[in-house]
Formats: sequence, C-alpha cells, structure tokens
Amino acid sequence: MQAQRYTDLNPSPRVLLGPGPSMVHPRVLRAMAAPVIGHLDPEFLTLMNEVQELLRYVFQTENRLTIPVSGTGSAGMEAALANLIEPGDPVLIAINGYFGQRMAEMARRYGAEVDVVERPWGEIFDPDELEQALQRRRYKLLALVHAETSTGALQGHIREIVEAAHRHGALVVLDTVTSLGGLPVEVDAWGVDVAYSGTQKCLSVPPGLAPITFSEGAVQVLRTRRTPVISWYLDMRLIEQYWGDKRTYHHTAPISMVYALREGLRLVAEEGLEARFARHRENARLLWQGLAELGLEPMVPEAYRLPTLTTVRVPEGVDEAAVRRCLLHTYNIEIAGGLGALKGRIWRIGLMGYSSRKENVLLLLAALKTCLAKR
Amino acid sequence: MQAQRYTDLNPSPRVLLGPGPSMVHPRVLRAMAAPVIGHLDPEFLTLMNEVQELLRYVFQTENRLTIPVSGTGSAGMEAALANLIEPGDPVLIAINGYFGQRMAEMARRYGAEVDVVERPWGEIFDPDELEQALQRRRYKLLALVHAETSTGALQGHIREIVEAAHRHGALVVLDTVTSLGGLPVEVDAWGVDVAYSGTQKCLSVPPGLAPITFSEGAVQVLRTRRTPVISWYLDMRLIEQYWGDKRTYHHTAPISMVYALREGLRLVAEEGLEARFARHRENARLLWQGLAELGLEPMVPEAYRLPTLTTVRVPEGVDEAAVRRCLLHTYNIEIAGGLGALKGRIWRIGLMGYSSRKENVLLLLAALKTCLAKR
Repeated sequence: MQAQRYTDLNPSPRVLLGPGPSMVHPRVLRAMAAPVIGHLDPEFLTLMNEVQELLRYVFQTENRLTIPVSGTGSAGMEAALANLIEPGDPVLIAINGYFGQRMAEMARRYGAEVDVVERPWGEIFDPDELEQALQRRRYKLLALVHAETSTGALQGHIREIVEAAHRHGALVVLDTVTSLGGLPVEVDAWGVDVAYSGTQKCLSVPPGLAPITFSEGAVQVLRTRRTPVISWYLDMRLIEQYWGDKRTYHHTAPISMVYALREGLRLVAEEGLEARFARHRENARLLWQGLAELGLEPMVPEAYRLPTLTTVRVPEGVDEAAVRRCLLHTYNIEIAGGLGALKGRIWRIGLMGYSSRKENVLLLLAALKTCLAKR
Repeated sequence: MQAQRYTDLNPSPRVLLGPGPSMVHPRVLRAMAAPVIGHLDPEFLTLMNEVQELLRYVFQTENRLTIPVSGTGSAGMEAALANLIEPGDPVLIAINGYFGQRMAEMARRYGAEVDVVERPWGEIFDPDELEQALQRRRYKLLALVHAETSTGALQGHIREIVEAAHRHGALVVLDTVTSLGGLPVEVDAWGVDVAYSGTQKCLSVPPGLAPITFSEGAVQVLRTRRTPVISWYLDMRLIEQYWGDKRTYHHTAPISMVYALREGLRLVAEEGLEARFARHRENARLLWQGLAELGLEPMVPEAYRLPTLTTVRVPEGVDEAAVRRCLLHTYNIEIAGGLGALKGRIWRIGLMGYSSRKENVLLLLAALKTCLAKR
C-alpha cells in the first residue's frame, strides 16, 4: 500500500447552490471537530435531549418521539414507511415528482398495497382530489411531499389534506426534506402524523442524519403492530428506547453528526424560525428577479414555487451540462440539473440554510450571465 | 425558543477505552471540519474511489463492491443480511454472544428460516461443529462473528469454516466490527463472501459508516434475486450504481463522514497493517500483564482473547458500575460493563485504533487501582 498516493484532503471552496447538500456554517464544521465521547456517556445523553428539544422547535411539535435517524434523508423516508406499514396494508401515495415515486417504491418493498394519485411533475395537489382518492378504500396512510426537491413545487393546504385523510381513517406521512428549517413546517397545527427530513438542506448540517417525528397516534400504531418492523436498524420502537428514558443500547449513535446537528439547530434557534423563513423568502425573490433579468424562466408558478429550491427551464439551444461545468470549474459554484423526467430540461438552484445569502445570489446571477454568454 | 439555553459544545476530554467508539485521531477530526462539497462533485467522486481502494486494503480484498454503507455498524450487518436473504431462505447463524443474536433477529425479520448453532458466551466455535451444523440442510448462508464485542472472544479458523460452508453450498457473512484495522481480516485469502464493519472501533473514525465488501459470488446472488431487497436504503444493487461507474443518484452520501473515513484509512495505510496489528497485540499484552498484577482475571483464555477488546471478570463484592463511574468522573476514562447475559459480571476494555496507546494502558491501570481501592 503506497500511502503517499493519498494526498491531504483539500476540497475546493464550493458555493453550494444545488438541491443539497447546502453550505455548512463554520460553527457546525467546528462542532464536528470536537473530541468524540461515548454514546452512553452522561454528557452525550444531555446532548441527545437537547437535540430532541431543538428538533421539536423546528418541527413545531410537542411530539415526544422526535429524533434524528442515523442515516440520510432517505433513511428517514424509509423509517416513516417501514414503521407504519405491515404487509398487505393499503396505502395511498401522492406522486408529483421523483420523491413521491421513491415513497411508492419503498412502500411496495415493505409489502404495502400501493395506490397512487398522480399529478404532472411540477404541479401540486388540490385537497379535494386527494379526498376523492382517499375514498377509494380505507387506506392506512397517505404519504406526500411538502417540498418536491425534483420539481421545486411547494404543496400547500397540508392542514386541509390532513383533515381529509383523518376523516377517512388514514394517517399522514409528510416529506419535509427540502422545507424543514427553510419554510413553515407546523406538524402539530397541521395534525401531521409522521414528518421526516434531512440535515443537509435547510438545516445546513452535513448529510448523515434524518430528523423524524411521530405523533402519539402514530406511536400507537407502532405499539399495536402485528408483525415486527422488517428493518431492525430503523425500528422506531427499539430506537426510542435509546433516545427515551431507558437508554437501552440499540446501535452506536453517530456522535460527531449529532454534535453537528445540535450546532445547526442552535443556529436556527438563535436566528428564530420567523426570521429564517423571511430570509429564505427574500433571497428567493432576489434570485427570481435576477433570473427574469437574464431572460430565464422558472418552471413553477410563483403561487407554489419553493423559496428554498428554484427550478429554471433551460433555454432552447443551451447545453445545460456545459453551463453547470462552467459554473463549477470557473466559479466554484454548484447548481444541479433535472432528475428523471426533467433531466436535461431544467436547472435546480437551491438557496437553503447557510447557502441562502444575498452574496451567493448576486454571485450566481453574475456567473450565470457569463456562462450563458459563452455558448 | 430560548436559544441561549443551549451552551457551546464542550465535551469532556474522555479517554475512550470501552467497546467503541474509540478515540479519534486529531487528523480525522480536522478532516471532518473541511468544507462540504456536493455528492456528485467530480472531486467527491475521486475521494469515493480512494475510500474504496483504501477499504480494499484493510479488508485485504480485490472485491470491486467494497464501500461504506451510510449508517453505523448495525446498518452494515443489516445490509449484508438484507441483500442476501429472500423470504423463506434457510440460513445458519452461529451465536456465541450478543451480536450473533442480533444477526439471527435481523435474518428472521427479513423472512429467513433461521437455524442457530450456539456456544456459551465467551467461547468460540470449532470448524467441525459448524460443518456438522451445515449438514442439517442446504443453507443459503452461514453468518458468524469474527470478534465478539460482547465477550471479547476471537473466532479463529475462518478459512476452514469458509471452506466447510462452501462445500455445503453456503455463503459466509462475517462480522468484523471489532477486528477490521486492529487484527488480520483477510477476506480474499479466507474466501469470505461478505464482511462488514463499523468505523468507530479499530479504524478510529467517528461512528456513522459501515464498511462492507461483497465477493463476486455474493454479487451474483444479488443479481439473481427473485424479489427486491426489502430495504431500499440498504439495497446494494442501487448503492453500487452510485459508488460504481454510473454515479446514479441513490441517496446523498454523508460527505463529512466520508472525509473522516478517508483520513482514518490514510492513517492505517501510513502505519501499515502489520505494524498496526503488532501495536494492538503489544498494548493488549501490556494491559493483560497489568490486570494480572491487580489480581483481575480476563474472562477469555489467552488462546482466543481479542487484542482489541478485553473482558475482565468483576471481582466478588465489587460494585462494577461504581468503578466505572469513578473512572469516568475522576479520570475521564470510559470503559464499559457487560451486555445481556454478562451485565454486571464483566468490564469491557477496548484498546482499538488511536485508543491503543501505551500511555492509555498505563493510565487505565493506575486509575483502576485507585478506583478499586476506594470501595
């Protein structure tokens, strides 16, 4: 083994304006460099309690079972579905983008009988059409995406949708990966049963943890399962014994990532949710204005356009990948292309967490102008 | 939200001599503080390739499919079993401690017909008795633990056991959580089909990733599954498309943890495996000598005692938890108690990775002497 082949780590100073990871605040990076302590150390147990309190604040919930799952956002999605679903359960998935599709795929793997209600990518659902779909049969749950990272569309009317689902006896699972910490996610006020997110979007913590929260109703469903959760690693009834009062060993918590999450959440608390949401809105408006001046057209109408992630149509005749390469290699700026059906047709520009700063917007607009002129 | 309730992160400078996490080298902590880049950034793809090369070195394998799973060691265990097992598959699990039990539990959840072969905790298996058990029926796989973290016993004769399993048509899954990087793990020479580990033991990287390697034979089994892997998050056929040449997005890689793992593996490569194993052996001997001088008795005979984790019988009349509290609160030293059947009866002392240093051994022995005298 020629150890010297592997040079010192020296990543370029990227300005991360894609769909995640977003830029990480220096205080969070510093927190990760703190010495590791044991996962049952009394000092770590205190940190765990604080992380739970702070997560309740960003989720706007009193839910006791509110923790970070030890995996990335997709592990949060899987934890939500795997814990609620038993083989044969009918579930309804609302699909208007890539991540709705992923939920349907996961639910099928866990043995659910999956029905879907679909909208073209980039559109959102009307509560009435979801209520109609909920009448097809008695579903155990309805799963939908609050902020579709693949399209940039924001699903509104969550409270009405939850009310409709509850009227028909279905729990609601809400994907808040690209909204939590960047725009209002009101778990209790909306009555959402399970919501999950990732750390690397609007919380601006490196990827690696998935905040999740379960209502007492959802916890009751866990307690009355007839079969064990197939995934042992994501079994919330085991995990809650470690995060709860018992402190029963389940798996070794990712200590440094928990340090990072705590610091990221502390930054959210210091800024305050309202101020944070306002900052995301203002910087998004600045971006939209600048894009218009460049003659670029957002894909999603302003009425339900995400402030945290803007999708932009690639103009006719422009090589979208070449523009991204120009941004990355000339200016150290990352934006992303489209996923799935939107590949090659859009750019995705994220302004999330610590990335959502006026200087980043101005820089991106100036760089985009140059890179577009090059073709 | 009273943000000021949450103080600056300030963990005590623990000397981590339990069963993990072990202490993290300052260079690894520093690596984690490097700025985050995107999970599809060309620079990150280079780092991913380097991590795979370095993991092949510590696993002593040429296996193409050698990657870190985005979860802790238990996620590695689950990835190994979930990918190989289809509902109804007969599997054989060798249990001589807590982690063998966990493998049986996971295999059952994924629908396997689980047979077990058992030894009292702290003992190891003879290849002949495993071969006898393998004759009961045609098992799809035999799973066993190389270094039992709950007992401190090292399972030898892996090559013979693998040969026996292969004679009877069974794949071998080997848990190397407490051995990888601390004592020889020779995946190719032994013919092991799947081996997994955690980062927080002998690699001395914070918990959060699970190195795993699949032989070509095991990969063939993945390719010919009749049913999808139930866990989407741990589905190796999807994950390998991201870590392989296609770079297809699956989930967002935990960037900072990959930085940390790369730096930890670089330290392993610089030291060299042989020198590293010798260091672990020497420091273990120093510990054992000192324990004998204190009149403390290891639970496992020297012939198959782990150099990375020593289990020590709690002397008659000693309050084991009080001794641990004394070590932690007076001297900032963490050791652990027993798990499951061994709770209250043993201490577990780890000398793994960066924790395996002469100064730590001397400090622990001196501190133990004081804390034992206090009773």
